[in-house]
Amino acid sequence: MNRTELQKQYDEYKAMGLKLDMSRGKPSPEQVSTMERLLTAVKTNEECFSETGGDCRNYGGLDGINEMKRLLGEMLGVTSDHIIVGGNSSLNLMYDTVARSMLHPVEEGCKPWSKYDQITFLCPVPGYDRHFAICEFFGIKMVNIPLTEEGPDMDLVESLVANDETVKGMWCVPKYSNPSGFTYSAETVRRIASLRPAAKDFRIFWDNAYVLHDLTDTPDELPEIFTEAEKYGNEDMFFEFASTSKITFPGSGISCIAASPRNIKRILNALKIQTIGHDKLNQLRHSRVFKCYDDIVAQMKVHMNIIRPKFQIIYEAFENGFEGYDNVTWTIPNGGYFFCLSLPNGTAKRTVELCKEAGLVVTPAGAMFPYGIDPDDSKLRIAPTFPSCDELAIAADLLTVCARLAIAEKYGE
Amino acid sequence: MNRTELQKQYDEYKAMGLKLDMSRGKPSPEQVSTMERLLTAVKTNEECFSETGGDCRNYGGLDGINEMKRLLGEMLGVTSDHIIVGGNSSLNLMYDTVARSMLHPVEEGCKPWSKYDQITFLCPVPGYDRHFAICEFFGIKMVNIPLTEEGPDMDLVESLVANDETVKGMWCVPKYSNPSGFTYSAETVRRIASLRPAAKDFRIFWDNAYVLHDLTDTPDELPEIFTEAEKYGNEDMFFEFASTSKITFPGSGISCIAASPRNIKRILNALKIQTIGHDKLNQLRHSRVFKCYDDIVAQMKVHMNIIRPKFQIIYEAFENGFEGYDNVTWTIPNGGYFFCLSLPNGTAKRTVELCKEAGLVVTPAGAMFPYGIDPDDSKLRIAPTFPSCDELAIAADLLTVCARLAIAEKYGE
Repeated sequence: MNRTELQKQYDEYKAMGLKLDMSRGKPSPEQVSTMERLLTAVKTNEECFSETGGDCRNYGGLDGINEMKRLLGEMLGVTSDHIIVGGNSSLNLMYDTVARSMLHPVEEGCKPWSKYDQITFLCPVPGYDRHFAICEFFGIKMVNIPLTEEGPDMDLVESLVANDETVKGMWCVPKYSNPSGFTYSAETVRRIASLRPAAKDFRIFWDNAYVLHDLTDTPDELPEIFTEAEKYGNEDMFFEFASTSKITFPGSGISCIAASPRNIKRILNALKIQTIGHDKLNQLRHSRVFKCYDDIVAQMKVHMNIIRPKFQIIYEAFENGFEGYDNVTWTIPNGGYFFCLSLPNGTAKRTVELCKEAGLVVTPAGAMFPYGIDPDDSKLRIAPTFPSCDELAIAADLLTVCARLAIAEKYGE
Repeated sequence: MNRTELQKQYDEYKAMGLKLDMSRGKPSPEQVSTMERLLTAVKTNEECFSETGGDCRNYGGLDGINEMKRLLGEMLGVTSDHIIVGGNSSLNLMYDTVARSMLHPVEEGCKPWSKYDQITFLCPVPGYDRHFAICEFFGIKMVNIPLTEEGPDMDLVESLVANDETVKGMWCVPKYSNPSGFTYSAETVRRIASLRPAAKDFRIFWDNAYVLHDLTDTPDELPEIFTEAEKYGNEDMFFEFASTSKITFPGSGISCIAASPRNIKRILNALKIQTIGHDKLNQLRHSRVFKCYDDIVAQMKVHMNIIRPKFQIIYEAFENGFEGYDNVTWTIPNGGYFFCLSLPNGTAKRTVELCKEAGLVVTPAGAMFPYGIDPDDSKLRIAPTFPSCDELAIAADLLTVCARLAIAEKYGE
């Protein structure tokens, strides 16, 4: 199809006055509706007590109720003493952890990060925009680390952390990484677990957001990070985060931070200043619905059956639309909420612009990179979960038209 | 009764092996049980939508749902555009507000508070230990401000804020102040609203925790602070905090911050980095149970009828036990969760110690003062709400015995 034909096809789409949104990693109404039983999991005063007899309506219980700690521990493969239960947002726990590190020493003998002229975080890219937004908010310099199918470029990571005392952190989404869907290989995890950073207060923010979020029957396997880290005496180097936002209700789930018992103690010392404790009734609801780990796994199968066809619809549209475009590729992850579309350099932004003008909102180009800058202007994040299958079929086809038009504009036919 | 007789009475109590706790401002199980209907206020998928059609199960809605903003606004006497709905802990909102001010300028042209060698908060005393703990955690110097029945000593406050650019904040519990139960007079509120601080980024943390928590049919009246502040162009000088923790469930209520629309905008700019938004399902539950302001007022009457008798039991025990002790006084507030017992100087700590040895936990002496230091060692916080009436009768009598014994030890008979 030449540029004129593409333009014609695009104009036809534009004339349809579409209103489609494929920009966010948001579960669909259909998907959240499968958790209705959570709403009535605690109905009476008598049901408001935790397994140790604690009154979940009242004050107390800074680190969460036992049954929820155990469940989240099983989810992450750690014991309960590694867990603090949070509120409904793991992002908030990550933000708090960075904020706390800015003002209080992360390790004995270190100074708060805000006392440095400049500190640096390593950011595997493409990555998660909200991680990068936290760094930007606190004035933390970000350095791009290329992310491959094996995980971050570890040669680069090892050399940066070993030689620079102001490199204080690294963001990782180790499983079904947002947005590529790559899972770190066992060797990558081993190398991360055995890092020898120059800074005693270097910390890895291990955002295990998609730990159970498989999309196939051959899911990726990720080694448990604290087990690996312990082998190298690096247990204190990791803060792990997860939540049930994409298991139960995105706006009303349960988050957690996992850390070494030593770090847990430090965090609780700060947390007792910060809050009266998180919502234990919602923890109780969750642990009544999910009595054991297998109950969560069963729920994830329900989600998989809703989400997988959505990914398939887009893959098919891309296979058709991009047939013959050898310079257009996309990832096909075994899980998570996204995949990544790679276009020829210099066409991603224009594609997004064309989509927008035709009524399709996609994640802004560049959003997956620190400071919103994709140096190649080539990557797009595809988020299939929210729209209906009908909407997705249109959106995906329209997206291919926009991308091909952008390519034609830039490179000719 | 002489010292020997007191000692005998005390030893008898000690032999009883009591286990009583009158240390915390915690609603009783009976009281929280009156809110059972909140548990089932949202039962089905269809009920999960806010009045504007927003899906409260899903992401979105950083500042809270409309109906909850309106309700909290009515509670505080401000319009919805002054409100951001929080999670279950107003303490967390206060902590966050201080933390944010440490790292980001509170006002254009100002520097973050952490960039000063030292900043100062004014702390009306006796006051709330968790306010002071936040200051201590961030290394903020605290200056005691005597609190009278009219509110903080305003001559002192005015002179301190007018002349020192490093005075950045003041804690206020303006209604039924924790622990004295005093409510600031209209004149005090006017003087606070019209302050002329040297620091452009001076902020008052107006913790209106007991705004509706009356204990009599002749409740105190507190002028609405933003209305007052507006008269003097000081609307931006106030952050107000409140929650339903002591209206619905202490561990699972809804908090809010109220601020000028200008400040609300600034806070939201930071909040969007910090979190995906707070739990909207719990907001929805609250706004279904409390359809309007009067519904909350009705609930507060239910609480009053449970709490008032508990205060009465202690007042009576104190009237009997401290008969003839002209140097022992206590406040009798019209609302709130506490009152304050004033003992002769140098006897508060010893009284707490004696209580503890006899199996009665009361709030540690000094807890109501910055750094835990009551310069006179004379004030005790009395928290009648949690124990049962039977327990309270014993606890109150035992407390008088301990206090009289402490006085006898220190001053002779």
